[in-house]
Amino acid sequence: MHCGFDIGGTKVLGVAVTDDPVRPQAVRRRPTTYDAGALVDTIVGMVADLEHDTGQPCEGLGLGIAGIVDRQGTLRYSPNIPGVVDLPIRRLLVEALERPVVVENDATAATWAEATLGAGQGSDHVAFVALGTGIGTGFVVDGRLLRGWNGFAGESGHMTVDKDGPLHITGAPGPWEYFASGNGLGRMAREAAAAGGLGAVREAAGSVDAIRGEHVHHAVVEGDAEALELVRAFAREVAVGVANLVHVLDPEVVVIGGGLVEMGSVLVDAVRDHTHELVLGGPHRPRPEVVGARLGSRAGALGSALLVAAELGGGPSPH
Amino acid sequence: MHCGFDIGGTKVLGVAVTDDPVRPQAVRRRPTTYDAGALVDTIVGMVADLEHDTGQPCEGLGLGIAGIVDRQGTLRYSPNIPGVVDLPIRRLLVEALERPVVVENDATAATWAEATLGAGQGSDHVAFVALGTGIGTGFVVDGRLLRGWNGFAGESGHMTVDKDGPLHITGAPGPWEYFASGNGLGRMAREAAAAGGLGAVREAAGSVDAIRGEHVHHAVVEGDAEALELVRAFAREVAVGVANLVHVLDPEVVVIGGGLVEMGSVLVDAVRDHTHELVLGGPHRPRPEVVGARLGSRAGALGSALLVAAELGGGPSPH
Repeated sequence: MHCGFDIGGTKVLGVAVTDDPVRPQAVRRRPTTYDAGALVDTIVGMVADLEHDTGQPCEGLGLGIAGIVDRQGTLRYSPNIPGVVDLPIRRLLVEALERPVVVENDATAATWAEATLGAGQGSDHVAFVALGTGIGTGFVVDGRLLRGWNGFAGESGHMTVDKDGPLHITGAPGPWEYFASGNGLGRMAREAAAAGGLGAVREAAGSVDAIRGEHVHHAVVEGDAEALELVRAFAREVAVGVANLVHVLDPEVVVIGGGLVEMGSVLVDAVRDHTHELVLGGPHRPRPEVVGARLGSRAGALGSALLVAAELGGGPSPH
Repeated sequence: MHCGFDIGGTKVLGVAVTDDPVRPQAVRRRPTTYDAGALVDTIVGMVADLEHDTGQPCEGLGLGIAGIVDRQGTLRYSPNIPGVVDLPIRRLLVEALERPVVVENDATAATWAEATLGAGQGSDHVAFVALGTGIGTGFVVDGRLLRGWNGFAGESGHMTVDKDGPLHITGAPGPWEYFASGNGLGRMAREAAAAGGLGAVREAAGSVDAIRGEHVHHAVVEGDAEALELVRAFAREVAVGVANLVHVLDPEVVVIGGGLVEMGSVLVDAVRDHTHELVLGGPHRPRPEVVGARLGSRAGALGSALLVAAELGGGPSPH
């Protein structure tokens, strides 16, 4: 049995997987702790929980973390886990648990899951784009996980798409995730509502200023026409960055994941159309597939478990 | 001996390389022919020339072509070689010459040369950016050439960096090469001259409308203060795309090549400064090196020769 963990800004998700990784043997959740020592203790405790649930030992641990993780398994910095900086979490867990530990960025781990078991299965050239509060991405190239020099590849949410545009919280001008994340959707909705549109969304939120991406999401699920139209416009913001990734990396399959895709096919369908319009080459290049993710919010934890399983000789190798 | 060719919009450059690829045994040039059959004949003729020059047979041929080349060695489409579309140039040359032929995009071939023999030597994570009339790019990741699904990776000049910006000749809004190519430099100079600046450049060109990137290039070489200031501003346009590539791919070394770098270190130095400002992660990530290319205009032909040499078992493998 292998244990995979997804350490996000608010919670840690843990899964125990055996032969059929898509169906974990056990799933556990705990709140994220914003203290280095407590974070290690949280994982150690969750390993004990998962071993208790399954009656089997975790042979290895995989961790996907929302932040910049280097190739030595040190969490350098995470905007979502303030207070935890330059934490050698891999080394600390190896010392505490005396078994193999693999640590990756959460989107990188999710990419491996979607590429090997999910919507990218069967292709050696997969780009994964997670649309959440921000944007996380990861890539499989020639069947191998693209990590880059330090392990920091896939920070594509910070690509500039509007070089003279508004400054993001990072201080950078017009990055992709400013426009195409859940936060970007919320901003776009507030602007539409301030201009007199999106009545149902405004009503549900209580006021224009209170509108968030979630309100649009719910209105779309309920079939609200104005919300659907807004999402189609928002999809173009997503497609601008997806087309950039297609120009740089030439993937066969682009998997769109993250919380936003749970609103249904309207978003992915519109991203596909806009991407095909924006990618150069017209009749001379085959169109990449643009599809919704299949593994949902467990992709990061599953991928982490798969990565440590591969390290121990089970399943396809990411290298 | 291996023969490498760089097929550009105006000329074909051929080199014959043996043990020391940096110093070709022979170099030949012919004008590019805009007809499929004539293009094959040109290469066949140049092979004979190079064999005559060196007194040795070309064991294999490598071709780098300014255009979209698929993994089967078919030139799908080239904006620079009109009239030549969906040309199976690899198959035609194998039939004509009965020896191994490797065909790649020209920037991809140049990337391999710079990564193995030039400014990226010693690193397994190299991004190459050629600033010419347009922008060509290529990448080495984990020591391997990144080709993508079809072989079309590295069309990064078409990344959108100004999503609501001016339409490029391709019809796409605000791509990187609109701003950061030789054409972009010329446009920026015409705007500055129209506003009353760049006196020396305007005088050399004869009129504001006649100003091209080359005029700025020459003024920089002569130390003109206004031209130097313009190039530093232009460097930020280059850095916007370089920083995007760093966020996506996390290279260790970014090699800046193409005709524009021949104006001297002012451009590369300013690109380095702006890139380091734009890349996220501050003290938590090591800064990528940003350096000028070393192999000059022969990089594409040299890289093509190296790629076929590798195919035949000589030198590092690109796979």
